[in-house]
Amino acid sequence: MAEYTFFTHPMSRGQIARWALHEAGADYEQVLVNWQDKPAALLAANPMGKVPTLIHHALDGDRVITECAAICAYLAEAQPGAELAPHDSERADYVRWLFFAAGPVEHAVTTRAMGFEPPADKQGMLGFGSFERTIDTLETLFADSRPWVCGDHFTMADVYIGSQIDWGLTFGTMPPRVAFVAYAERLQARDAYKAAKAIDQALIADMQK
Amino acid sequence: MAEYTFFTHPMSRGQIARWALHEAGADYEQVLVNWQDKPAALLAANPMGKVPTLIHHALDGDRVITECAAICAYLAEAQPGAELAPHDSERADYVRWLFFAAGPVEHAVTTRAMGFEPPADKQGMLGFGSFERTIDTLETLFADSRPWVCGDHFTMADVYIGSQIDWGLTFGTMPPRVAFVAYAERLQARDAYKAAKAIDQALIADMQK
Repeated sequence: MAEYTFFTHPMSRGQIARWALHEAGADYEQVLVNWQDKPAALLAANPMGKVPTLIHHALDGDRVITECAAICAYLAEAQPGAELAPHDSERADYVRWLFFAAGPVEHAVTTRAMGFEPPADKQGMLGFGSFERTIDTLETLFADSRPWVCGDHFTMADVYIGSQIDWGLTFGTMPPRVAFVAYAERLQARDAYKAAKAIDQALIADMQK
Repeated sequence: MAEYTFFTHPMSRGQIARWALHEAGADYEQVLVNWQDKPAALLAANPMGKVPTLIHHALDGDRVITECAAICAYLAEAQPGAELAPHDSERADYVRWLFFAAGPVEHAVTTRAMGFEPPADKQGMLGFGSFERTIDTLETLFADSRPWVCGDHFTMADVYIGSQIDWGLTFGTMPPRVAFVAYAERLQARDAYKAAKAIDQALIADMQK
């Protein structure tokens, strides 16, 4: 049995988790999920029935990890040989931007995509305040021309935050600022990115035959 | 100088970070933020201008941490003596539920509080799907009668997830399910919870004089 069981769908945020699995060099078996007939093992592991869901078959028992950012953070620690976890001096940037992307950025982008417009007097209730301020703040991450979230060290934070920027540019939900476009190009040049995307693209092509 | 500078406001999510600082036994100095006149040091550290924002004056330089969940996760690692970081076998639950709370739960609760109703055919775009399914999934965390997120070990995940449940019950944004109410009572009995809340409540009382 592979070390990880990976429930996914090629047209979903599962692409983020697959890229993370490839960056980590993890030994995984995929289970493709049919939206209309979800596997019982997926629903038992994750009552949300969402993909990606990852099960780590650890020596002391199975461990379930859901949420893309959590899967990235978990794999960084569980597969230390890939050196994708932050060093001590990088940990503040790592957790800060992972949670900024999983919270305010995700929230701001989907709220706008759904056509909701938060009234100005209620923005204080929302962790992201406004779409513009959230995107402006995300852009400051690259103000010192760093290549990656934690500086010169590529970490799992780049897989998650990078996926949000890469997808946002592709689908037009994030503005094509120079720093974002250059960052996405650096990400797309990585071997693990290419390997993971090739698998999902081939699966999508098969489904569309 | 204290080891941490803590920008906060007593009537804000800063209460979560203060509780985390007390659980961690961190040496901090607070800076109370006036919404109408935000300190330059806060805006320099966090262009969102949000509280809580934490600056760790580490030996190799200042580190900025924003986002409540990130502050909890950072302090767990930075203050190892408090034993608030997960053991290896607890890490899956720790990251899974931290990100579930920071993403889907936060998103579902605030979307409902803003009066937005996601159309059924667009729920797939949202990481939380629906409010009910999100709350039901959160409740499964306690299905095996565990006292804390990671089982018998109280961790920083409890400070963050516990705060969401504790606040949700207080403000009526989360249903008073038996498991949530019992969990909130366990949290409220902790010394660090009481010490942190006493400070914020005293500040609020002062402001209302």
